[in-house]
Amino acid sequence: MSIDTLKIRRIGIDTYHENVAYLNRECSIYRAEGFQALSKIQISINGTRLLAVLNVVDDDAIVQPGELGLSLQAFNYLNASEGTLATVDHAEAPKSMDAVRRKINGERLDQADFDDISHDIVETRYSKMEMAAFLVATGQNNLDRDELLYLTRSMLNSGERMDWHEPLVADKHCIGGIPGNRTSMLVVPIVAAHGMLIPKTSSRAITSPSGTADTMEILSKVNLTPDQMSDIVRQERGCLVWGGTAKLAPVDDILIAVERPLGIDSQGQMVASILSKKLAAGSTHLIIDIPVGPTAKVRHMRQALALRKLFEFVGDRLNIHLEVMITDGRQPIGLGIGPVLEVRDVMQVLNNDPEAPADLRQKSLQLAGRIIEFDPDVRGGQGYAIARDILESGRACAKMKNIIKAQGANEIDLQPGKLSYPVCADRDGVVTHIDNFQTAKIARIAGAPMDKKAGVDLFKKLGDKVTKGEALFQIYAEFPADFKFATKLAQQNSGYSIGEKEQILQPLIAF
Amino acid sequence: MSIDTLKIRRIGIDTYHENVAYLNRECSIYRAEGFQALSKIQISINGTRLLAVLNVVDDDAIVQPGELGLSLQAFNYLNASEGTLATVDHAEAPKSMDAVRRKINGERLDQADFDDISHDIVETRYSKMEMAAFLVATGQNNLDRDELLYLTRSMLNSGERMDWHEPLVADKHCIGGIPGNRTSMLVVPIVAAHGMLIPKTSSRAITSPSGTADTMEILSKVNLTPDQMSDIVRQERGCLVWGGTAKLAPVDDILIAVERPLGIDSQGQMVASILSKKLAAGSTHLIIDIPVGPTAKVRHMRQALALRKLFEFVGDRLNIHLEVMITDGRQPIGLGIGPVLEVRDVMQVLNNDPEAPADLRQKSLQLAGRIIEFDPDVRGGQGYAIARDILESGRACAKMKNIIKAQGANEIDLQPGKLSYPVCADRDGVVTHIDNFQTAKIARIAGAPMDKKAGVDLFKKLGDKVTKGEALFQIYAEFPADFKFATKLAQQNSGYSIGEKEQILQPLIAF
Repeated sequence: MSIDTLKIRRIGIDTYHENVAYLNRECSIYRAEGFQALSKIQISINGTRLLAVLNVVDDDAIVQPGELGLSLQAFNYLNASEGTLATVDHAEAPKSMDAVRRKINGERLDQADFDDISHDIVETRYSKMEMAAFLVATGQNNLDRDELLYLTRSMLNSGERMDWHEPLVADKHCIGGIPGNRTSMLVVPIVAAHGMLIPKTSSRAITSPSGTADTMEILSKVNLTPDQMSDIVRQERGCLVWGGTAKLAPVDDILIAVERPLGIDSQGQMVASILSKKLAAGSTHLIIDIPVGPTAKVRHMRQALALRKLFEFVGDRLNIHLEVMITDGRQPIGLGIGPVLEVRDVMQVLNNDPEAPADLRQKSLQLAGRIIEFDPDVRGGQGYAIARDILESGRACAKMKNIIKAQGANEIDLQPGKLSYPVCADRDGVVTHIDNFQTAKIARIAGAPMDKKAGVDLFKKLGDKVTKGEALFQIYAEFPADFKFATKLAQQNSGYSIGEKEQILQPLIAF
Repeated sequence: MSIDTLKIRRIGIDTYHENVAYLNRECSIYRAEGFQALSKIQISINGTRLLAVLNVVDDDAIVQPGELGLSLQAFNYLNASEGTLATVDHAEAPKSMDAVRRKINGERLDQADFDDISHDIVETRYSKMEMAAFLVATGQNNLDRDELLYLTRSMLNSGERMDWHEPLVADKHCIGGIPGNRTSMLVVPIVAAHGMLIPKTSSRAITSPSGTADTMEILSKVNLTPDQMSDIVRQERGCLVWGGTAKLAPVDDILIAVERPLGIDSQGQMVASILSKKLAAGSTHLIIDIPVGPTAKVRHMRQALALRKLFEFVGDRLNIHLEVMITDGRQPIGLGIGPVLEVRDVMQVLNNDPEAPADLRQKSLQLAGRIIEFDPDVRGGQGYAIARDILESGRACAKMKNIIKAQGANEIDLQPGKLSYPVCADRDGVVTHIDNFQTAKIARIAGAPMDKKAGVDLFKKLGDKVTKGEALFQIYAEFPADFKFATKLAQQNSGYSIGEKEQILQPLIAF
């Protein structure tokens, strides 16, 4: 309850979605107020208030007794110059933490609770610990579907919302987990060539060897402003850009930054995350791709069906036309894993190259076909054939070239990394299993996606015959350290199983 | 997966139970490894390994590109001099986080899971976010009583354990929440004067206006080493020291540091916390005091009974003789709240002063009597009378003087703060309610316990008649800012209700 003031000082530490204040241990305010480490303090400058977690500093070179150090995020938020006087006070936890505690106690929250929580998170009033508490309390089976709807709506309302002023704005989203699954780079040009609006925003890799934005970046710029994106979409009917520049559902980004290091993965939060982002991006019609397989995110058909119902329940109530496709997630899609290798696969499909990976082509046509059937003028069941015609006629390829040009083409070098190592079969047989996790891990450790030319190129897929000593896949890397670790990892566990044909797990559904 | 090295540098920031590593954004390792903010990294120096959360630094004055900055805790843990070369590597989350995730998913954990989690927490492998996740996942009704037993055992085994080499080591503990409740300072001298061993360790205030250690510190030193404590206990049969110096159940301290700012308060964690600490301190016989009242931690008798069963279940299985006393928690105990004012109350009781607060005396005698009945030579039902005889004969007072002398007497100044303000009744009637929370808050904001002379002195208790304008209590403070805020708070809400005699809530049990 002090009314004393301190001079603010910018501390060049990026504390990533958490405001941190640094007070010298000898600071009179620290001593008098009985602040405790990890206390939250309230900082006020000319009516602007900020909550920050307190770190105590024993080094005058970092912050002196009369100063208040602020981490980069906190300093930028207050938008005042160094030396400005700030008032420091005890801070209560954000009010909405009461709702989080009620949730921890097993109560049901309502729309107002979720709105308050989202608002406090966007206003950076939550510490990382408080966000972790919220995520665990609302994780797994702790939200019923009405609460999930409230959460999604509050996340959607936490940021800006795009409006394309068209009745049909198509989009697709895969829940992830399948390496090489670059269908968006085929679906977008096909659907846009059909004339439908498909302003696709994609993510960069978080834990995977490449995100669509990473792979697309080989071909063109992806880091466009919302205005640039809007111009391109109006001209080409589609785009393939990174979604990070628009302020869409910002709560989602903040929560993901905490969720990821915790390794928490809740179905409810996934549904809220995907739908809030898509609705904020202005989508009206959405296909969700849920791959199912033993090393996919969703392992059993019953889980996939439960997830589908959740998507449908929330989507219907938030006025998005949503269809779920459950797909074959038993192995990677295509052959290349890593930005440059994936571009090669995509270009082969677009060019109708007979060498093009059949599974990537097939899956992309199915997804594009389902989206094309959102068009009221298309007869049910005709979407696939239309998509195939667009692809085979070269119109998809032409559309992709136009999109690349509009976004700003990059000079293309599709040569993979200069270090390479073939991983070979240790027996005769057929490929009975390919582990998505292990394959992704090898590609990632080889350097993907930071290192665009790194990755893994698969020579064999499920059911293929192999003889002892024959190469299953090749590792590519640019840097010796990465190369060494990736080859070592692949020697320990290649991710491939070789056995008899009968051992191949059949797809859980006729895809 | 790097094998590169960086020079370590001590960063004078106290990150409180979390290891933080600071890497310059331009550091080649940061760039090459694709570390992300909040990533965990593994730091190795000559075989000593440490996990730390990554903060990215944009200021070469704090940490240069070739350096690895370490927060104080991390630097001290590694025990190497500045400039020593360290290897930095990606770190997986601690293995036991798998168990935390299983718990989040609703599974039951076993003893080995809790042992692994405790071990990883003590070894500082958990980030604050991960601890928050553990606390929420195991909070409230999420642990069954067997899991609570496992948790308690693993916390107990996380640190050292004292052994007094006597068959009966008595202790008492109150679950807290009642201001002025300084019974330990009466129970210890009475029980020790009876000849029973009662080596009492107490806490300092966390959120209350005073802990027993804060109040005892007015009279003597409390900051003793385990060896000093041991010598005093052998000589005097009792002591009243701060429990923070012995490394007892260290996991408990670490978790409390996260629990407190989150405001999470789970019954299961309270049971595990209290029993692990008491068992580690070598107690064999324990009285637990559970105050019940509308503004106590436990509000309903059914909650108190459920909590009692939990204490009994875990205590019986960990071989501690444990009895629970459910007590009257409708109002503060005694009259003074804050270190100096509480000492006055305690000394009045010890001196058999007719002005001494009757409730403090009565409750202390009841608790001491129950402990004395642990003595096999004492007949059931005789404990209270024995305790009273010890008090009235002056033997308790003499024992207390000996304990003070043994611990190192302080110069005593019982003058309360120089600023004072009486809070008066706004109508005639009787006191029908005193809010423990509000009373504690006023005393705390007045400066207690940092400011030993600050606090609140109650003139009226439940059932007392008051006339309009008569003082209900007096606020004491040393500093004008504290005084101003405390009086303002009391003017808004004094915590007292005045009404008719029939409105007084009767005690929930005949205490």
